[in-house]
Amino acid sequence: MRVIIIGGDAAGMSAASKLRRLDEKPEIFVFERSKDVSYSACGMPYHIKGGIEKEASLYVRKPEDFTKKNIRMHLHHEVTALAAKKREITVKDLSNMKTSTHAYDRLVIATGADGIRLDLPGTDKKRVLTFNDMEDMRRLKRLLEEEKPKRAVIVGGGFIGVELAEAFRGRGIETTIHEREAEILPQLDADFGKDARKEIERHGGNVARGSVVKGYEEKDGRFFVLTNAGEEETDFVIEAVGVKPNTGFLAGNDLDCLPNGAIRVNDAMETSLPSVFAAGDVASVYHRILERDVHIPLGTHANKTGRIVAERIAGRAAHFPGVLGSFVVKIFDKTAAKTGITLKEAEAAGIGAESVTIEAPSRAGYYPGVEKIKVRIVYRRKDKRLLGFQLFGADGVAQRLNAAAVALWAKMDAATFRQTDFAYAPPFSPVYDPLLICANQIK
Amino acid sequence: MRVIIIGGDAAGMSAASKLRRLDEKPEIFVFERSKDVSYSACGMPYHIKGGIEKEASLYVRKPEDFTKKNIRMHLHHEVTALAAKKREITVKDLSNMKTSTHAYDRLVIATGADGIRLDLPGTDKKRVLTFNDMEDMRRLKRLLEEEKPKRAVIVGGGFIGVELAEAFRGRGIETTIHEREAEILPQLDADFGKDARKEIERHGGNVARGSVVKGYEEKDGRFFVLTNAGEEETDFVIEAVGVKPNTGFLAGNDLDCLPNGAIRVNDAMETSLPSVFAAGDVASVYHRILERDVHIPLGTHANKTGRIVAERIAGRAAHFPGVLGSFVVKIFDKTAAKTGITLKEAEAAGIGAESVTIEAPSRAGYYPGVEKIKVRIVYRRKDKRLLGFQLFGADGVAQRLNAAAVALWAKMDAATFRQTDFAYAPPFSPVYDPLLICANQIK
Repeated sequence: MRVIIIGGDAAGMSAASKLRRLDEKPEIFVFERSKDVSYSACGMPYHIKGGIEKEASLYVRKPEDFTKKNIRMHLHHEVTALAAKKREITVKDLSNMKTSTHAYDRLVIATGADGIRLDLPGTDKKRVLTFNDMEDMRRLKRLLEEEKPKRAVIVGGGFIGVELAEAFRGRGIETTIHEREAEILPQLDADFGKDARKEIERHGGNVARGSVVKGYEEKDGRFFVLTNAGEEETDFVIEAVGVKPNTGFLAGNDLDCLPNGAIRVNDAMETSLPSVFAAGDVASVYHRILERDVHIPLGTHANKTGRIVAERIAGRAAHFPGVLGSFVVKIFDKTAAKTGITLKEAEAAGIGAESVTIEAPSRAGYYPGVEKIKVRIVYRRKDKRLLGFQLFGADGVAQRLNAAAVALWAKMDAATFRQTDFAYAPPFSPVYDPLLICANQIK
Repeated sequence: MRVIIIGGDAAGMSAASKLRRLDEKPEIFVFERSKDVSYSACGMPYHIKGGIEKEASLYVRKPEDFTKKNIRMHLHHEVTALAAKKREITVKDLSNMKTSTHAYDRLVIATGADGIRLDLPGTDKKRVLTFNDMEDMRRLKRLLEEEKPKRAVIVGGGFIGVELAEAFRGRGIETTIHEREAEILPQLDADFGKDARKEIERHGGNVARGSVVKGYEEKDGRFFVLTNAGEEETDFVIEAVGVKPNTGFLAGNDLDCLPNGAIRVNDAMETSLPSVFAAGDVASVYHRILERDVHIPLGTHANKTGRIVAERIAGRAAHFPGVLGSFVVKIFDKTAAKTGITLKEAEAAGIGAESVTIEAPSRAGYYPGVEKIKVRIVYRRKDKRLLGFQLFGADGVAQRLNAAAVALWAKMDAATFRQTDFAYAPPFSPVYDPLLICANQIK
């Protein structure tokens, strides 16, 4: 059996490795457009910030690690077309631009999602960058080291925007985030976005809210970002306004996709085309609270769905049980995190929901280092089933979020969750943990 | 209705406060043997250590706070007898030694558990202390401040022993823990106890294992601890070998108790005597994994069971759903934690169980501050149901334990738990959290 995997990062290489572990027989080919495989995209902002000195630290594995396991790696090879009926792909070798066709028995699409380019008037490849892959990171690093810029504009206040703002401020660069919405981190309720913004401002970052970037302009060697509210001079720009699944090469195939272009898969990671699987940022995932397919591109899902594909190809009865949309993001000295849905998302989905919000100490009130943690729980009105948690604070927020995620995973109601036997010691929490205090408010 | 509560710490005052919030009508009396109410016993070692300057910080509430809510506080009053058939208690006012009797409609026993005294030959009230309540803490603090001792012996390597060892080392005192068992923290598997011991030793503390203290001896003004292995000179001794429920005043009543003397209660916190409730360290709790009543005296249970008593007295249908035995303990720079049961406990209970153990990074491998966390999961052989987690490390161990506790609370099996959608970002965990990596080992 010949298995072709398109894409050599988290989902693709998880699939390749796991398949090889399960079965030594199939031929496994990997085609990857860039020269990089199996790296931690989530770590890139921290390399820019400077705490992780070596770029090589971000690589999870090297191409040779896979070659040794009889996985045939083709880097710098772009897949340009799929002929699903013929079970064949067309590949361009980017080093010599020669194309070739390759037949498969099973195809795995793990091409990820690229940062959306705004393509605004006056854009400039040298000064307007994205931050999507290792090549983008190297370009940004060269710019920072060679030009020593003093001013940065980040378009978009999502994860990448917020993490890069921290990185740039850490390098002493004056930084402004331009966010279209009323607050940054629009995955969270607006007051949590505000908490995050205040933390950025506390560290000298600027946030322009409701700011729509209209274009760029060079005047007398100076570079300006043009927005609905005026113009801002900058030395460079990062466009971080979301991602788009990489599916261009699939044109001409009758493939079921979500409205944003993510490939729809079932819980076996099968697409609507026979013998074609998809995994990672290019694919949909089932949201266990919303009970529908969504596109939430995150490294955790990529790793897990890649493994499911491998188990399926190896003939095992694996199922991907879906996601909660759990995430955590560091914002300077604070942490914001979410699992499940916000009240706004519940309303949009037609779920009758209510929420409670508390602030509670992270440790015993008298214990050094205690600070406030904010917790919001969204629950279903009719039966108090837990639907979502949002947290903001620092001390233990990331791991607390995971306790909440387990509760959602188990479909707990508030009455069950709030009685959970949490461990307590003064250095780590108050007698009632903030999560339980919040759940206790649900009557 | 007249409600009498015996004991003014976590369980008793939780019951009093909650009952008053639910119902303003009942007369509520509290009799407390000491002069202290509503304090954090768990915080006492940290006051000794020195990071929490004011003793007053340890008080959750003052007696006046309760008096204002029409709760009649009688401090320094010891209850000496119960006549359950007459629904009457006898109380001694310790300020004048006068006794009186008081009738009740509902009685709440929340007398806690005192530190067991070894009463060994040569014991000495001035040099051999316990560390059970605020009065003990003050006595120890006076000794530390007035005599500036250089050497301490702690008999017992449980929570108090370990926490006081950290406190004493923090004050520059040479400290030896004498533990009867092969390793300290015998609630954990021995290798976790060893991890904890190594951390104590790394900070200059001594641990004598398999050490049975036989007595004390004063020779020429010097004080010695006599053990099965020899003698050790010390300036003072803390006996911290466990606690015994305070039930002496109940003699003559036909009360159902566990073998260790803890009062057996049902899930309404009712004892075997009519209209008599028990809560907190004096009472049994139902263990949800062992499926039987046990005695696990912890502050979390005290607070929760006190509230359940109040809800019951107020006529509500509250049930205490039991415990997992979750705990977390700080050991210098490390943290040990457990929820559910160990393999040894599973064997003792006749549960066919197995375990898996891993060490995994606490953060992305390249992220500053990453360290190893050790995780053991115990699971039921026949259906892979999760039975217990033990953790050792520092970074996020306490909160990770709570995610594990939620999984046990939901009676999850390994296959369900390991797919949970945890949040990931490099500063907080690897892509697969150590908990999930460990669960992934269960085939």
